[in-house]
Amino acid sequence: MFRDLSRPIETGMPTYPGDPDVTLAPDATHETDGYATSELRTGTHAGTHVDAPRHTLSEGEAIDERDAGAFAFDARLVDLRPLEPREPITAEALPDPDAIDAAVDLLVLRTGWAAHWRTDRYRDHPYLTEAAAERCRELGVGVGLDTFGPDPTPPAKSGETGPSRADEPDGTPAHDSLLKDSLPIVENLCGLDGLPARFRLYAFPLRLRDGDGSPVRAVAEWEEA
Amino acid sequence: MFRDLSRPIETGMPTYPGDPDVTLAPDATHETDGYATSELRTGTHAGTHVDAPRHTLSEGEAIDERDAGAFAFDARLVDLRPLEPREPITAEALPDPDAIDAAVDLLVLRTGWAAHWRTDRYRDHPYLTEAAAERCRELGVGVGLDTFGPDPTPPAKSGETGPSRADEPDGTPAHDSLLKDSLPIVENLCGLDGLPARFRLYAFPLRLRDGDGSPVRAVAEWEEA
Repeated sequence: MFRDLSRPIETGMPTYPGDPDVTLAPDATHETDGYATSELRTGTHAGTHVDAPRHTLSEGEAIDERDAGAFAFDARLVDLRPLEPREPITAEALPDPDAIDAAVDLLVLRTGWAAHWRTDRYRDHPYLTEAAAERCRELGVGVGLDTFGPDPTPPAKSGETGPSRADEPDGTPAHDSLLKDSLPIVENLCGLDGLPARFRLYAFPLRLRDGDGSPVRAVAEWEEA
Repeated sequence: MFRDLSRPIETGMPTYPGDPDVTLAPDATHETDGYATSELRTGTHAGTHVDAPRHTLSEGEAIDERDAGAFAFDARLVDLRPLEPREPITAEALPDPDAIDAAVDLLVLRTGWAAHWRTDRYRDHPYLTEAAAERCRELGVGVGLDTFGPDPTPPAKSGETGPSRADEPDGTPAHDSLLKDSLPIVENLCGLDGLPARFRLYAFPLRLRDGDGSPVRAVAEWEEA
């Protein structure tokens, strides 16, 4: 049983604030060339993608330095819903070290934010506290997220303030904490509805030379009961 | 046990004649932005990739119309070496219908041409005859190739002739034959040395909206003996 957990990649798709626009345009055509090819222009962090340690750590590992097989994950689903906009995810919301199978190497954290894709609200996703990232390191697991990432994203309306914003960390502390241990981060997942508690997640990055990340086709597989 | 069968994707990499150049360039940087992202510009058929039926059939299925799980293949390795430049691969060189496990859905054809990557000789790869493509349809299998594709590629020196060239088909008949039945084609594989006779091949395309193909990370997996 397979399930696609990936966003479509297309011209004008939503991207993280400041990232390059995505375009997919015809190159060769049936009419002129007898076959069709296209040119894709994309940021390395567009749509469903994986982060390499180099994304936030200047001396970090590049995406092509890790063996491809390491991106076939033994994943565990953690349903955190309901969560408020910009709510911090605490360590206590994640599994205890003694309540998790040692084989698990990725927690897929369902925040419910996938429903906000293509709206300003998608930026106001929950984020991992320092203690939650530390818990992941203790468990030796990376994270998959149905959001832009594990750290807060700048809001759509500049100058927006509020209790949650004031307490938010600067920079990319959750990224840094996970990537420092070369723990994987898979972002902008979707299609998490009805997944079993455990599944295999394939999220093989393109073999981008010295890359800081890569769009992926994220695919879940599990045995039917 | 995993094995990466993919070409690195990088600025200036070899591409099929007439395809767009590939570039991977920095966008955000650690110095300016506190994190690194890049912009990738690539043809949909650069490096190791899969063809959608739409690649050579104007009314063919797009790459995102097929379920992602269909790109986790039950592959059988067929070692065709040694082969001469531009040698036709005949139906007889492929497995008989009664000598192949029905579960197999991809033949990985090893021509030995991966050794010529980055040279003009890489264009002079062996190709599938009409009868060989017909055999694949009979078997209900797609093909993985360590070449630009199942049809002849224009030679590096224009005007090159010879006995093999004169007999070559025009157009993309092997592509057409396979893609007409929605049989997959995976091109520019490498790293085929020492693979077992049977393995699983993951070649999940990016979810490119209405795409004619997609670069992939092709990864083999098998149980260690």
